[in-house]
Amino acid sequence: MTLNYPDGRSFSSNGNTSNTQKRTKKEVRFGDRGMHLEEEINETNIFYREHDQAVIYKKPIPVQIVKVDYPKRSKAVIKEAYFKQASTTDYNGIYRGYYVDFEAKETTLKQSFPLKNFHQHQIDHLKACKKQGGICFVIMKYVTLNRYFLVDADIIFDYWDKKNIDGSKSIKVDQIEKIGIELKSGYRPTLDYLPAVDKLIAAKQGELNEDY
Amino acid sequence: MTLNYPDGRSFSSNGNTSNTQKRTKKEVRFGDRGMHLEEEINETNIFYREHDQAVIYKKPIPVQIVKVDYPKRSKAVIKEAYFKQASTTDYNGIYRGYYVDFEAKETTLKQSFPLKNFHQHQIDHLKACKKQGGICFVIMKYVTLNRYFLVDADIIFDYWDKKNIDGSKSIKVDQIEKIGIELKSGYRPTLDYLPAVDKLIAAKQGELNEDY
Repeated sequence: MTLNYPDGRSFSSNGNTSNTQKRTKKEVRFGDRGMHLEEEINETNIFYREHDQAVIYKKPIPVQIVKVDYPKRSKAVIKEAYFKQASTTDYNGIYRGYYVDFEAKETTLKQSFPLKNFHQHQIDHLKACKKQGGICFVIMKYVTLNRYFLVDADIIFDYWDKKNIDGSKSIKVDQIEKIGIELKSGYRPTLDYLPAVDKLIAAKQGELNEDY
Repeated sequence: MTLNYPDGRSFSSNGNTSNTQKRTKKEVRFGDRGMHLEEEINETNIFYREHDQAVIYKKPIPVQIVKVDYPKRSKAVIKEAYFKQASTTDYNGIYRGYYVDFEAKETTLKQSFPLKNFHQHQIDHLKACKKQGGICFVIMKYVTLNRYFLVDADIIFDYWDKKNIDGSKSIKVDQIEKIGIELKSGYRPTLDYLPAVDKLIAAKQGELNEDY
């Protein structure tokens, strides 16, 4: 089945017909505004905060400031600064009493998600947060397919650690469909990912109950 | 009782003699390194992370980047950027499964802590996080007295809201002694504040139990 977006880009079916049709309908109305995943998540987080659903922010880009000018009658201007390596993921906050921490990544590839999109410090940080009991995950966007998945960080760790052993360098789309929770882009909020987070919380509570 | 620091600065007793003596002893060994509260907390957070006790970071300063140069054979230089107003507090993270969020403030005043040290967006953010079930507080340092207090955000809200009604502009030291949990500066970690956070968590759990 081949569908086209209003702007003429072709839409690749994933074989899951009912899902495909539902998404396509929505995209005609709201989707495909050419937004980057980061903007979509930022808009969504503003919506969540305005509606008291969650308090989640993107962290500012870490910068080493070297020189600042303070011109008279106008605000300070940073004249020399350098990008610093981040130590954490981009997003964190609180939802339903849970600490939430995640990274957002997009790829223009259709068939697979390259693991090189992740960095060691992000994996390390997510592992440390998991250890403290956090809800940790990754939101992935296949830009060309206009599909979004939320994947539990534990699954990413498995792939990451496997990569270090056997050199496999990506996660295939058909694998993501099985291991991830698909998200739908919408209007308000732009990318409603909290229902998927609810599922991770439910799974976590299930594990805790098993421990007793 | 008047004591002097090794560098000659006078130490004001607070009337709590045993505490004073304990702290003074410590200060001779480790204290008074001229560190700002921010550095002390950053060092402490590194210690906590290294010992798997908590994952708490200071957020980077938000900056609006306008112009970046990419010189050949060397790293990108930010040539024009501006400080942006932060929307949140400076610190957040996870401890024992709890979302932790706080602001750190210091004053050189001896008798009181001016409320103008806080900003509306910080109060609003702490309130939003409390609503979601977070552990929210403020760490205050009286630089001249070399005393540190951790105060539950709810108490700060009371003062803040009162300020908006009756114009009271500060929290007196003798009040902080009653409403806050005093922290001791040390060596490793530099400012061990997690035991005080444990008390906030215990109080929260007590409240939850009362609800049932």
